Amino acid sequence: MTSEFEFIDRMKSRYGLSRIGDDCAVLPKDHLTDTVITADMLVEDIDFRLDWATPEQIGHKALAVSLSDIAAMGGDPKWAMLSIGVSEKLWKTDFLDRFYSGWHALATEFGVKLIGGDVSRTPGHLVIDSVAGGEVAKGRAIPRSGAKAGDLMYVSGELGGAAAGLKLLEQGVADAELIEKQLHVYPQVILGKQLLQLGLLSAMIDLSDGLSSDLMHVCRASAVGAILYTRSIPVDTKIGSHFAAADAFDMALNGGEDFQLLFTTTGPVEMDGVTLIGYITDETGQVYLEEDDGTRTRVVPGGFRHF
Amino acid sequence: MTSEFEFIDRMKSRYGLSRIGDDCAVLPKDHLTDTVITADMLVEDIDFRLDWATPEQIGHKALAVSLSDIAAMGGDPKWAMLSIGVSEKLWKTDFLDRFYSGWHALATEFGVKLIGGDVSRTPGHLVIDSVAGGEVAKGRAIPRSGAKAGDLMYVSGELGGAAAGLKLLEQGVADAELIEKQLHVYPQVILGKQLLQLGLLSAMIDLSDGLSSDLMHVCRASAVGAILYTRSIPVDTKIGSHFAAADAFDMALNGGEDFQLLFTTTGPVEMDGVTLIGYITDETGQVYLEEDDGTRTRVVPGGFRHF
Repeated sequence: MTSEFEFIDRMKSRYGLSRIGDDCAVLPKDHLTDTVITADMLVEDIDFRLDWATPEQIGHKALAVSLSDIAAMGGDPKWAMLSIGVSEKLWKTDFLDRFYSGWHALATEFGVKLIGGDVSRTPGHLVIDSVAGGEVAKGRAIPRSGAKAGDLMYVSGELGGAAAGLKLLEQGVADAELIEKQLHVYPQVILGKQLLQLGLLSAMIDLSDGLSSDLMHVCRASAVGAILYTRSIPVDTKIGSHFAAADAFDMALNGGEDFQLLFTTTGPVEMDGVTLIGYITDETGQVYLEEDDGTRTRVVPGGFRHF
Repeated sequence: MTSEFEFIDRMKSRYGLSRIGDDCAVLPKDHLTDTVITADMLVEDIDFRLDWATPEQIGHKALAVSLSDIAAMGGDPKWAMLSIGVSEKLWKTDFLDRFYSGWHALATEFGVKLIGGDVSRTPGHLVIDSVAGGEVAKGRAIPRSGAKAGDLMYVSGELGGAAAGLKLLEQGVADAELIEKQLHVYPQVILGKQLLQLGLLSAMIDLSDGLSSDLMHVCRASAVGAILYTRSIPVDTKIGSHFAAADAFDMALNGGEDFQLLFTTTGPVEMDGVTLIGYITDETGQVYLEEDDGTRTRVVPGGFRHF
């Protein structure tokens, strides 16, 4: 079956859509500034479950995933639109009031204004399309496509916590901290802007599908490969209380929704909360895990995909 | 039950969302230009049916409704984003290829570039969120809120054809021209830009919900009322082949999805394809139909609403 990534590539080449395929589209604003803009669709029972998350948490996450895309360009979020399709049954409850309350709390934190959207009825599942726009200094947005052989590769935060939280929700196991990582995504907007200021970044992406998949997006867009140091991948230390080390590593490598930033640089970065995890090679689309003894294993992207 | 319009008003006042409630949001771009931006969610079996429309027609309509919103501001459409949630069953067919083909044909006609969006999976119904952006000379976008007592009121084209087409689809009656009006919406972008140039417009809206409902949106946003000349409402002449005159008039007054432009002006407009249908009064929220003999009947908005 065609994957969603293959489908998007086919549409890009058929219709000459050169602007498609980054975390955000970049549009010229004025002579100092570009606009960055992103859309994310969230569907009930695919991207979230009403019995696992409060309406406020779903509202928070709907905006957080879009702000994370803006962070991945080094952008400063400014405004958002929200389209929501809701069943008549849910419409009659306080769901939307609480949803907007969660949405608005995060928007206020980042100074984001709701400027529009749509309300529609659905025959069944709740569906949300979150659109956010931001600004970045002209020509300075960090694309996925700028990584070059020899560049260093870093990731922010710890990985796998959101995937572990999801697993615990599925298993009905309570662990407030890990479940919080799944439900209360924090977009790395401040870090993204700090990284842009360094002037060293060649490529950046947010980790939504999972490290192995998102790194492959960077490699394909940049026509490069990568070496990941197995020992350097910052596996979330809290996962170890519930899962074996091998499972924890798999969650960090392939689990989605950590919404940390993966970036490549032309020189070393000294900053709290970011970890050097490897480097870029010229072998297009080839990603390997490298052990301390130099042994290499090919990585097959194992992150989330819809199709 | 709270209507969608009441809900949006409540959110506006609770969170101070002054920019919400027009066909498009208006954002400053540079010192000469504003950006206008709109989002429309279309849900299978609510807004369209897969057995009544081809995938190309659904793709066309998804973009057309958003271009119509840009037309209603007097704007020039430039770019669009498309988020689509699709079931695995539909994903395996050629639906999306054909959908994008219909979408792209209309986009090409208006010079609109696809810059982003999202592809998601749904457990059931197809859902589309269409976002479009355009440009308008700084401070010149035509809002819903500018109508003043004494302004003249005009509408473009003929009304009721889309509602008649929908009825025929429901009844299984073939009438290519009327069904085309329902399925092949043509956004009035060129007319909207011409109207802006006149420098006479005080308010404008596109007829998506229906004349009675959309006029009420203008009246509420502008804190005015209106008199509609019963005899002047341009009822689509083709409806008469299938429906009684009273039904045809009801379709023109209350039927949705004609996507013509309703606008108010500070002076008379002489232009092909637009009809003077009444004038604005200072009785906030009061809309009346007026007969030739001066008799008046109160109009209760009878157009489409989701809730």
